[in-house]
Amino acid sequence: MTPTSADLLITGCTVLLHDDHEHIGFRDDAAIVVRDGVVESVTSAAAVDGIAAAERVDARGQVALPGLINCHTHAPMAALRGLAEDLPTEEWFNDVVWPVESNLAAKDVELGARLACAEMIRGGVTCFADHYFAMDEVAAVVAECGIRAHLGEAYFSSQGPQGRERSLEFALRHRGGAGGRITTALAPHAPYTVTDSDLAATAELALAHDLPVHLHAAENRDQTDTSLARHGVTPVEVLDRTGILDTDVLIAHGTGIVERDLPVLERAQGRTAVATAPRGYLKFAWPTTTPVRALRDIGVPVGLATDGAASNNSLDVWESMALTSLIQKSTTGDPRWLTSRQALHHATLQSARAVGLGEIVGGIAPGRRADIILVDLTGPHTQPVHDLAATLVHSARSSDVRTTIVDGRILMRDRELLTLDVPAVVRELGERMPGLLDRSHGRRIQEYDT
Amino acid sequence: MTPTSADLLITGCTVLLHDDHEHIGFRDDAAIVVRDGVVESVTSAAAVDGIAAAERVDARGQVALPGLINCHTHAPMAALRGLAEDLPTEEWFNDVVWPVESNLAAKDVELGARLACAEMIRGGVTCFADHYFAMDEVAAVVAECGIRAHLGEAYFSSQGPQGRERSLEFALRHRGGAGGRITTALAPHAPYTVTDSDLAATAELALAHDLPVHLHAAENRDQTDTSLARHGVTPVEVLDRTGILDTDVLIAHGTGIVERDLPVLERAQGRTAVATAPRGYLKFAWPTTTPVRALRDIGVPVGLATDGAASNNSLDVWESMALTSLIQKSTTGDPRWLTSRQALHHATLQSARAVGLGEIVGGIAPGRRADIILVDLTGPHTQPVHDLAATLVHSARSSDVRTTIVDGRILMRDRELLTLDVPAVVRELGERMPGLLDRSHGRRIQEYDT
Repeated sequence: MTPTSADLLITGCTVLLHDDHEHIGFRDDAAIVVRDGVVESVTSAAAVDGIAAAERVDARGQVALPGLINCHTHAPMAALRGLAEDLPTEEWFNDVVWPVESNLAAKDVELGARLACAEMIRGGVTCFADHYFAMDEVAAVVAECGIRAHLGEAYFSSQGPQGRERSLEFALRHRGGAGGRITTALAPHAPYTVTDSDLAATAELALAHDLPVHLHAAENRDQTDTSLARHGVTPVEVLDRTGILDTDVLIAHGTGIVERDLPVLERAQGRTAVATAPRGYLKFAWPTTTPVRALRDIGVPVGLATDGAASNNSLDVWESMALTSLIQKSTTGDPRWLTSRQALHHATLQSARAVGLGEIVGGIAPGRRADIILVDLTGPHTQPVHDLAATLVHSARSSDVRTTIVDGRILMRDRELLTLDVPAVVRELGERMPGLLDRSHGRRIQEYDT
Repeated sequence: MTPTSADLLITGCTVLLHDDHEHIGFRDDAAIVVRDGVVESVTSAAAVDGIAAAERVDARGQVALPGLINCHTHAPMAALRGLAEDLPTEEWFNDVVWPVESNLAAKDVELGARLACAEMIRGGVTCFADHYFAMDEVAAVVAECGIRAHLGEAYFSSQGPQGRERSLEFALRHRGGAGGRITTALAPHAPYTVTDSDLAATAELALAHDLPVHLHAAENRDQTDTSLARHGVTPVEVLDRTGILDTDVLIAHGTGIVERDLPVLERAQGRTAVATAPRGYLKFAWPTTTPVRALRDIGVPVGLATDGAASNNSLDVWESMALTSLIQKSTTGDPRWLTSRQALHHATLQSARAVGLGEIVGGIAPGRRADIILVDLTGPHTQPVHDLAATLVHSARSSDVRTTIVDGRILMRDRELLTLDVPAVVRELGERMPGLLDRSHGRRIQEYDT
């Protein structure tokens, strides 16, 4: 059926498509018809000649991809980018980051989130899974700037039961917010900062309220070793015995997932996924990375992520995609593993599944929300194109994203952000910085330790 | 002394400077005065108020860095970017790259070099060390587009003595070309493709003609192991016994440099340096990376490089800088090693030394050639700036380079290339592609093997 009108019409581009087996292919000289925030059809440029459209984007020379999804971050920490450098994880957190974080006011969280959303929209990220405090501020920024987000209010057991209650209250209040762009999760921090009984209570709440869980677990091998030494079980086994694996759970990092965890994850009753943010693992000199291949073998999707900018220095999911491919090849010793098409599968459908939106976004197909980015491949660094998937993963950069669209709304056009004022955010953050960096009030209520 | 006029005046920027101990610092609100292609002074913005200048760049909000140096590449291979993906090294070279390379005509080399120079200038690279065939074409492109280059005509022993003679003839004829922007080297391919007697003859020619040598050696651990098994010596020991280490030598990769090589390199009579291109080592799943820390300990400079775009997919030295930092932390298990300032030291003075230009470029200081790039840090991904060195290495991207200057001449201004026509190159390359990819004439005259 040929459409007769559209809210948004994107013409002349090459479109990344998934076939029935989820293999990635490309359709040249295509058009994307968007109505009511949804992809109505992907057709030929010729088929839409002359149809009426409220908004048109001429995308010749560009490739349309599903918007990237940042499956685990702490958006407000963009305010702390570069604050604690070249340190081991514990010093990074306990000596610098946490003392500053304990100073953060709601306004700082808001400004950090705004800066983060600006960076992500410019880098082609249309959805992010956030795990932080004062998340009402983040939800407000999401509503305002038009991005999609999966939000969870973090808590430690050291906060008492109020932490968990706030997390639940946040998740219920914001679920479906921002015109459906906000989904929510319960967000316990990690098995080493949340007790088993609190994790069990979280699992019960998740099932009772049909909420997913987003938490850190088995972040690195040290955590797994320490958990084994202290409790005789791995962090993943803790998730199992506390019922967390009966919920839909998004595990951040998982570089400490070990062989014995694999059957546990495989028989999990809920939908389990892992978010990988490889840059930080290198920077902290962790001995392992997320076991993507082993997780693939047991059917656990692995989404791409950046973690927060205070450790990762950027929220560049494009870089996460390239690094995931490179580090997987390197750590498995197999240059044939994690091809560019596999990397694009992680960046699209697997990332969408990781944040519980596997049927909603992650592909450009009729019925899916119109979260689309347009990537310019005319630069010298992306020419010639012998293998488009390789060009996208290994040669293109986040700065090649020209246009970012969420729910059919253009948030960046030709590199210009339409919903966020970066200079104003930077100015206001700069004014607040002296107070933010005053660590004299820093209290260590939480150790980043196992 | 306050200058009274200038050819080029850059004002309002922050400038990266090296102190007497080569520590990196930054001077805010500075001005750079350029005359006759040379930095005349670095002073305050106020000090140059009202002086006459043929050309001015208002660089407020930007950081001036010494231009990046790509210490080992094969520029023309940009034409083959993405042609052979997800393959082990030998299949990549023998089954795909070499059969196509053996088809390359001079025109292909020229177009590939032009594309590569466009990419490098856009990425803030002001000088590259090139190692390829038909290098007259590359020299012509360098002369035309204004970049600086260190060029060597590659040869294998399989070409007979003519290969070495052509390499010498090229080096003598082009030395000092393009108004001094071209320097040259003898360029034997590698110890496994050039016989010991040919290497010895090369060393004699190098000393007789005061030429440096640029070659691949100990590229990966396999090469070292095979060399030991076949000849009882490592590739570095081959360089030693053939006299190559008595010359000024630039070794590409060196990921197969082992413990016993270190004293050999330390007592080398010539100026020895290594170029590291870590992206490709990950992509090929090589088991080790360049031992940067061990080389630092024996005083061997390590320059940053990308190798060719057919393996690396990009000529992005900025990415090499970030990856070198990340991979060094990861492989040494030490997050404190290879800090951002150390990475910038590799990117500046060490890279300049690696290509034999240690006194000429690599720093912004009176008397050095004016090879300068201006980097815009106003984007959301580079804000706020808590630690400028970290912002540059871990948050900024090659796309943040706004202006590229070589010998005082602006080659890119506000992201616009002034000396190269990318669409024309891409069009012409596209027309030649079918002939280029026809492998039916491919002859294997050289195995990429140990």
